[in-house]
Amino acid sequence: MSISDDAVRLHEEWRGKIEVTSKVPLQTKYDLSTAYTPGVAEPCRMIHKNKDDVYKFTSKGNMVAVVTDGTAVLGLGDIGPEAALPVMEGKAVLFKTFGGVDAFPICIPSKDADVIVQTVKMIEPVFGGINLEDISSPRCVEIERRLKKELNIPVFHDDQHGTAVVVAAGLINSLKIVGKRFEEIKIAVSGAGAAGNAIVKMLKDLGVKDIIVCSSKGILSKDQKYGNWVHQELAEMTNQANIKGGLADAMKGADVFIGVSAKGLVTKEMAASMNKDAIIFAMANPDPEIMPDAAKEAGARIVGTGRSDFSNQINNVLAFPGIFRGALDARASDINEEMKKAAAYAIASLVTEEELNEDYIIVPAFDPRVGNQVAKAVYSAAVQSGVARGVSV
Amino acid sequence: MSISDDAVRLHEEWRGKIEVTSKVPLQTKYDLSTAYTPGVAEPCRMIHKNKDDVYKFTSKGNMVAVVTDGTAVLGLGDIGPEAALPVMEGKAVLFKTFGGVDAFPICIPSKDADVIVQTVKMIEPVFGGINLEDISSPRCVEIERRLKKELNIPVFHDDQHGTAVVVAAGLINSLKIVGKRFEEIKIAVSGAGAAGNAIVKMLKDLGVKDIIVCSSKGILSKDQKYGNWVHQELAEMTNQANIKGGLADAMKGADVFIGVSAKGLVTKEMAASMNKDAIIFAMANPDPEIMPDAAKEAGARIVGTGRSDFSNQINNVLAFPGIFRGALDARASDINEEMKKAAAYAIASLVTEEELNEDYIIVPAFDPRVGNQVAKAVYSAAVQSGVARGVSV
Repeated sequence: MSISDDAVRLHEEWRGKIEVTSKVPLQTKYDLSTAYTPGVAEPCRMIHKNKDDVYKFTSKGNMVAVVTDGTAVLGLGDIGPEAALPVMEGKAVLFKTFGGVDAFPICIPSKDADVIVQTVKMIEPVFGGINLEDISSPRCVEIERRLKKELNIPVFHDDQHGTAVVVAAGLINSLKIVGKRFEEIKIAVSGAGAAGNAIVKMLKDLGVKDIIVCSSKGILSKDQKYGNWVHQELAEMTNQANIKGGLADAMKGADVFIGVSAKGLVTKEMAASMNKDAIIFAMANPDPEIMPDAAKEAGARIVGTGRSDFSNQINNVLAFPGIFRGALDARASDINEEMKKAAAYAIASLVTEEELNEDYIIVPAFDPRVGNQVAKAVYSAAVQSGVARGVSV
Repeated sequence: MSISDDAVRLHEEWRGKIEVTSKVPLQTKYDLSTAYTPGVAEPCRMIHKNKDDVYKFTSKGNMVAVVTDGTAVLGLGDIGPEAALPVMEGKAVLFKTFGGVDAFPICIPSKDADVIVQTVKMIEPVFGGINLEDISSPRCVEIERRLKKELNIPVFHDDQHGTAVVVAAGLINSLKIVGKRFEEIKIAVSGAGAAGNAIVKMLKDLGVKDIIVCSSKGILSKDQKYGNWVHQELAEMTNQANIKGGLADAMKGADVFIGVSAKGLVTKEMAASMNKDAIIFAMANPDPEIMPDAAKEAGARIVGTGRSDFSNQINNVLAFPGIFRGALDARASDINEEMKKAAAYAIASLVTEEELNEDYIIVPAFDPRVGNQVAKAVYSAAVQSGVARGVSV
């Protein structure tokens, strides 16, 4: 039996990986009259008078919507909202297990950014946060930016920012090993989609100056025009030297390679052309841009992938449950750069100086400390950056 | 401490009456790779090939949205979507406790019927059914009819049809006591909103011929024009004798009074003017149209209310959990008249001939048999009426 067969059998057995359960007893008339009518009228009245009380009396403050349109699901592409549901339920399970966050899937049968934004606005009252998931680029970036402006609750696109946070965490620790600083390294990024976009921004925010991004059509550069506005934006903030060419040209002399693109795009020759003590994060799923053994043979010192069967797994689950836990606890109005940076450093800090080595730059997904540690750091960053609206202990 | 005080204290303690919990273990790499990536890809692919498999592999088939816009919440009126949330969570708790149905609140910050219909359509993929709740009339009737047409899953407006089913159940048993038949009785209904509308239709469906409906402005009659189209519709299907006047005129000689209106509208004189063996269901909440003791003093033989502190509580919770349980189990495309009638007779049948008396026409809300009994009857009716699309045992 393969993992696939097991997954099919188990999914049929589970018939849904989530359920909506009651936190209250309902065994007597008293229970019914406090949890429901007539008693429930009073909390309703209080929220009506002071809308903020919805956080005091309901599940809103711990409830996150996992929103998709099913256009970029895993490596499967545009499979539609129904077929995306098993992934969104899985995400909800991860939220609950690793962050204590209640998460509910919303799969929208429209690819129209206006419709998606409008739908999310129309379900906002019951949610304390929005996690966008598996929406194709560049729409996902547009949708996220609009929702961040138009909603009163934090909005987070995990494929962008969750990935960026965990990449940053891995890089923080990798640079310690090779003794380089963000300010002095050159980074080649393969993949100019949502993840690539967020990674580049986060790296710049961490101090990296020299970044070159490749789309499937080659290196992005300022003197070209792109139909995809995310590519345009990326071209304008990277490639200072205005290099032309393909991924091989981008990787020549780079200290770090970050792949959020596709299987096998990186050859051994390309890996060998990198600078001394090269760091390679080849995160295409399920098959990386270059396999770890090949990268090592080509001279790379540190290799990370998205897979759990190799060391150094760069896995979003290290980030999003704790990020939302912290944001919800602080009742943050936003998940901002400071909070994401705090999350990255918190994840990185879980590997001690003694433990840190080429094959252990980041803790595994099941490290029980991660959720709490990230939540605390994000909470503090929310307070310090002025987006915390309340303390819900 | 009053019930209100207790309810406020408990709601603050609970901070939400529902949570989204995981049905699957997530303790090992194997768990993660079957519930989530990479294993989850296979069920996704299968649903992509055959959309119907979403019922096989996800929670959709047991998940109901409790949808409101917060315009007609309990007796509180238009208090908005946030303030409605404690009631919707309470409803979700009732769904789970009495029907094993997973229910999730959706509170929409718009009163525009188009927007509400569109929003529900945009969240359809993750739900197996829609329960509309506490939306003001006549919009709720329009929204329900449009959604019934435009969605592929059953749509039910509990304030209309749940109420109608339980009223019918109570009346079926009451008529046994007084020895009258649906075909020969005259019924006066006070309240021409959503509940009144559905009750009238269900009573006609049960064979009642003589029904008079009063709005707050008096008896509805065919030769008047109404701004409210639900009133117009009601006027056209009731009051054959074309009687004019107010509630007192409507109740004169009636065998049954059904109140879904407001506190104290019925005087002792009005109750006394009814036919012999009068049946009075005074269901205004929390204060009935006439108090049971006054109604009895005026000569009524059977009195029911919406309250749990009097006998004969006409409570929707007897109906909706089992109705949805049955509809979901049959994967019904609709909750049709046959299914509602089956639910009414199933509820009525739980009172045996020996038990039946003036103070016991209907089982209490906590009768543990109700959910199952109703579900079975509704399931059979779905199959027999041709709306069952699958058997999900």
